[in-house]
Amino acid sequence: MPEERPPVAIIMGSQSDWETMKNAADTLEILGVDYEARIISAHRTPDRLVAFAKGARDEGFKVIIAGAGGAAHLPGMTAAMTPLPVFGVPVQSRALSGQDSLLSIVQMPAGIPVGTLAIGKAGAVNAALLAASVLALYDDDLAERLDEWRERQTNSVAEYPLDDTP
Amino acid sequence: MPEERPPVAIIMGSQSDWETMKNAADTLEILGVDYEARIISAHRTPDRLVAFAKGARDEGFKVIIAGAGGAAHLPGMTAAMTPLPVFGVPVQSRALSGQDSLLSIVQMPAGIPVGTLAIGKAGAVNAALLAASVLALYDDDLAERLDEWRERQTNSVAEYPLDDTP
Amino acid sequence: MPEERPPVAIIMGSQSDWETMKNAADTLEILGVDYEARIISAHRTPDRLVAFAKGARDEGFKVIIAGAGGAAHLPGMTAAMTPLPVFGVPVQSRALSGQDSLLSIVQMPAGIPVGTLAIGKAGAVNAALLAASVLALYDDDLAERLDEWRERQTNSVAEYPLDDTP
Amino acid sequence: MPEERPPVAIIMGSQSDWETMKNAADTLEILGVDYEARIISAHRTPDRLVAFAKGARDEGFKVIIAGAGGAAHLPGMTAAMTPLPVFGVPVQSRALSGQDSLLSIVQMPAGIPVGTLAIGKAGAVNAALLAASVLALYDDDLAERLDEWRERQTNSVAEYPLDDTP
Amino acid sequence: MPEERPPVAIIMGSQSDWETMKNAADTLEILGVDYEARIISAHRTPDRLVAFAKGARDEGFKVIIAGAGGAAHLPGMTAAMTPLPVFGVPVQSRALSGQDSLLSIVQMPAGIPVGTLAIGKAGAVNAALLAASVLALYDDDLAERLDEWRERQTNSVAEYPLDDTP
Amino acid sequence: MPEERPPVAIIMGSQSDWETMKNAADTLEILGVDYEARIISAHRTPDRLVAFAKGARDEGFKVIIAGAGGAAHLPGMTAAMTPLPVFGVPVQSRALSGQDSLLSIVQMPAGIPVGTLAIGKAGAVNAALLAASVLALYDDDLAERLDEWRERQTNSVAEYPLDDTP
Amino acid sequence: MPEERPPVAIIMGSQSDWETMKNAADTLEILGVDYEARIISAHRTPDRLVAFAKGARDEGFKVIIAGAGGAAHLPGMTAAMTPLPVFGVPVQSRALSGQDSLLSIVQMPAGIPVGTLAIGKAGAVNAALLAASVLALYDDDLAERLDEWRERQTNSVAEYPLDDTP
Amino acid sequence: MPEERPPVAIIMGSQSDWETMKNAADTLEILGVDYEARIISAHRTPDRLVAFAKGARDEGFKVIIAGAGGAAHLPGMTAAMTPLPVFGVPVQSRALSGQDSLLSIVQMPAGIPVGTLAIGKAGAVNAALLAASVLALYDDDLAERLDEWRERQTNSVAEYPLDDTP
Repeated sequence: MPEERPPVAIIMGSQSDWETMKNAADTLEILGVDYEARIISAHRTPDRLVAFAKGARDEGFKVIIAGAGGAAHLPGMTAAMTPLPVFGVPVQSRALSGQDSLLSIVQMPAGIPVGTLAIGKAGAVNAALLAASVLALYDDDLAERLDEWRERQTNSVAEYPLDDTP
Repeated sequence: MPEERPPVAIIMGSQSDWETMKNAADTLEILGVDYEARIISAHRTPDRLVAFAKGARDEGFKVIIAGAGGAAHLPGMTAAMTPLPVFGVPVQSRALSGQDSLLSIVQMPAGIPVGTLAIGKAGAVNAALLAASVLALYDDDLAERLDEWRERQTNSVAEYPLDDTP
Repeated sequence: MPEERPPVAIIMGSQSDWETMKNAADTLEILGVDYEARIISAHRTPDRLVAFAKGARDEGFKVIIAGAGGAAHLPGMTAAMTPLPVFGVPVQSRALSGQDSLLSIVQMPAGIPVGTLAIGKAGAVNAALLAASVLALYDDDLAERLDEWRERQTNSVAEYPLDDTP
Repeated sequence: MPEERPPVAIIMGSQSDWETMKNAADTLEILGVDYEARIISAHRTPDRLVAFAKGARDEGFKVIIAGAGGAAHLPGMTAAMTPLPVFGVPVQSRALSGQDSLLSIVQMPAGIPVGTLAIGKAGAVNAALLAASVLALYDDDLAERLDEWRERQTNSVAEYPLDDTP
Repeated sequence: MPEERPPVAIIMGSQSDWETMKNAADTLEILGVDYEARIISAHRTPDRLVAFAKGARDEGFKVIIAGAGGAAHLPGMTAAMTPLPVFGVPVQSRALSGQDSLLSIVQMPAGIPVGTLAIGKAGAVNAALLAASVLALYDDDLAERLDEWRERQTNSVAEYPLDDTP
Repeated sequence: MPEERPPVAIIMGSQSDWETMKNAADTLEILGVDYEARIISAHRTPDRLVAFAKGARDEGFKVIIAGAGGAAHLPGMTAAMTPLPVFGVPVQSRALSGQDSLLSIVQMPAGIPVGTLAIGKAGAVNAALLAASVLALYDDDLAERLDEWRERQTNSVAEYPLDDTP
Repeated sequence: MPEERPPVAIIMGSQSDWETMKNAADTLEILGVDYEARIISAHRTPDRLVAFAKGARDEGFKVIIAGAGGAAHLPGMTAAMTPLPVFGVPVQSRALSGQDSLLSIVQMPAGIPVGTLAIGKAGAVNAALLAASVLALYDDDLAERLDEWRERQTNSVAEYPLDDTP
Repeated sequence: MPEERPPVAIIMGSQSDWETMKNAADTLEILGVDYEARIISAHRTPDRLVAFAKGARDEGFKVIIAGAGGAAHLPGMTAAMTPLPVFGVPVQSRALSGQDSLLSIVQMPAGIPVGTLAIGKAGAVNAALLAASVLALYDDDLAERLDEWRERQTNSVAEYPLDDTP
């Protein structure tokens, strides 16, 4: 992994998506994976989108995590302009609870893939884990950290439910 | 209406959308409105999309009709790069019958509008009618033709249902 | 644009829709587009609907923005009685979150178009922007104001997400 | 029941709805209830709709059965202009299988009721049965015919399923 | 209308449905239509359901309003055992917001009709109005009261939206 | 298992459901479990329903499999009148593909359970398997036959997909 | 019923599911049916799942109640590895209100059944009742207790709704 | 890339899924990426699933493509038992057109990610492209082939729609 550039870009359509996407950032930090988070609105800043997507590989990014809500075009349009793997996070929308976000991201036509995660926070965490699993294919240290993270997760599951939990 | 350039652009994501979008073209022809039909895939030809959308006003277009299916990003991304009115037609998709197309087109965030029509053929016809109604605001001849078309439509509705219709 | 009459009518099914539709009004004001807001219930005041829709063009309106929720018939019935462009805003309904409003507005049969925007506030803002883009086709000053509004919107998007936002 | 006028009006948005609505007519015939079937398009023939709905009570109709598909406004708009009971039949639409028709008809706001039946043929049959049950409240002969029809229906249900049915 | 027995029965599956169904009762009271409200659970009190439904006509009821939520079987099962008109009100359910209630009530097979109203409070009000419209067919005084109610409703719709409403 | 009475009743709302429910019967036969198949329409034969459900335990049945479509009330109403376990099969409906059947069966209120299987043929097969697993709790021979059936199923899964399958 | 081992296992995917699944436990307690509640995450503790499901019959369990939310794989995967009857409870999820949980549990392919209950608390209560009805087939005392519980439930339904309930 | 083992495993729940998943295989072949296709049913062959998933990394696989329909547990359960990236393809199901498959695959809880593609053939093609983009991060030859494939795809999009296409 190049030291000088973070391997993961976390992009999102607006500041309001950060509440969700921060979970991706936090997860990457725990795994020791560098990232850069940017706001790129497919609709309000299309030039920024084009510049970012076309330059992402040359900038040194390996994986792109893109979160957006409603008619969520950011993940798919990014994937249209970069050969890097793009993982999409449907942000939970107000009226339709993210059903619009999910379909707008996952139902890509043959030719331009977006690996889509669950709606909302779970999806953001998992986009980070998926990005890490991709990077871990050629980074034995990260692979080990990911294995340990998964093992800790397994061990943290209690055997019996408790009535009083905080 | 300028003679040299058609006022309406009909764009669509792929050849397979033409079966639907041809209904927009046919309707415009009946109303005597010139148009140009192009294939522009937001995902497979993003450069073509950028070039078209950014240049549409200068090319002389007044209204853009955009049809796409599935994770349909063409109408919204076009609207992101032109101040012209964009009318979106959700093409009926295979698995989800156009529910994905509809939500991907209509649920645009505040700031970038797409006037969305019905799923499929009805939407394509109506996109043409809506484009004509916009152009008719400043084209009295077209306004008259549109009024006549609407009157003919009203007159064509039979009073009573018939058992044997072809 | 005629000075004496506002070019845009904002109509809605009930007082309770104003919370949503006020966003259309506010957006038009920012863009310097005059409007008139009226309550017209397709179901409770059908005569008012007929009178308004049939007379809208002669009153001098150019574009109609119509918001309604549930079995939302106001946009489509208005479009049935005027050749002016009608833009529909699905108001978020209580039980079905505006899915009923959306389908009732967008799924118009071929022949009578309603350009439909997103459910709720985003749709109201965008209906105003779409109306402005239509009027701007023949109003260079408005076109400039709309371009500036879009540019300000683009410039207002921060490059990086912030953890602490009000 | 007045001899000179049929008590039931069956109205529908287009000729294509007759395939569905004919089931209402056939059921009324079996029950010996007179009806008149008319095509009234809320969108394409709004004047016809207003004239019919406002005059329906004076014409002598008692119950109105209204079938429509997609953004189905006919039942609700009729109910807005007549105090007669209106029963709505959601015609199965192409893309959304009548889900749009159903929500457009049933989700009426408080104040204007439409008694809605099932999507498609079953709904048309049941609209006729419901209309008959209303008329039977004050027509003992019809009440008896309806009772007999229901009894025959009950008796026609076989006790055991058969493998070979035509 | 017979003095001794109320013409309308309002039945519901549980006490918790009363919050919704009370709107039907209140509306009938305003219209001067007598009613009786009972709790009848199709699932928890099936004997009560059978006794009520089979005896409803002989008890003197003319119209039955039935509200239920979730897998709502009360309206349809009542309709299966009485020739009286049954109007169903889908009570808004917790997880699915009444979508389950609506489909369980409206999608009756051919042969047993339930006239279904909107989900929740609007549906309860409208069930009362629909019941009144049925009774008004042969009760001129009620017809007049219903006309007046509808006229008051029409007159109560303000012309313009207000920013400050309580 | 008593020899004289079959332990499983397969009931369905109409002859047309047999195409689906026959898969339950066939599966029970393979497992050597006796059954009786009857048509019982909750809506068209409510008396038959009451008689069957109330008497099912005394007749000697142990488990009831009930299939129905649309506003499917048969499983839930049967469960309301018998303490025996009831397993429901949502038959695929025409307009809504069994989504109405599924919700009408599965969304039972607390107090009356219906164990619901998948929509259509898979659900019918699985209702039989579930019934067998219940009976096998106290029938070692059946438990063995069920184990063998499951093992044969596991063994029948090929390791690799084939391009040419009949 | 063997004294030494509880006949019912209540398993759930996480501590957070206990809020829902506790209703199953409480219902079993009222009915005098022993149970054991465990957390088993199909995704985070797959080994625990395999060990539990494969050993459940030998451990002495008769019936398994499994609750999970979102992409809910616990009920189906348990059913894949035990011949015991498995009853699934779709826990209400945040974004999609349990629609994802329901479909993930109920739409099992032919061969591996899961008897699915309603989304949320009602489903948990009913899973316990269904488990009890299965055990009651060969436990006369339990059958009597279940009959009494059902009778108490029936008797607890008030005849008339009350305006003031706590 | 190791010569001796294919880097991609394509697994699917049944032979019938091959019609969809073959599109992933074909796409990998065009890109010159080796793969192995196996049938692994989460429900019918759970031991095979455990063996495969736990051993996949040691076998030398880098990326797993998993397709399944209905209550589709294969992708998520595989992801639960391997740290390799798993990409899920929702196979179009009969009753619900793949909506159940999609939600069962994509709505994974935080901790175990599945990168989900579109329903059906498009999703299978895109899973292959996404797998290739992951492998291309460290395989310059493949990166070049992928770039060329994408460029050919872009170039293959015609400028204008044709009326007569085969």
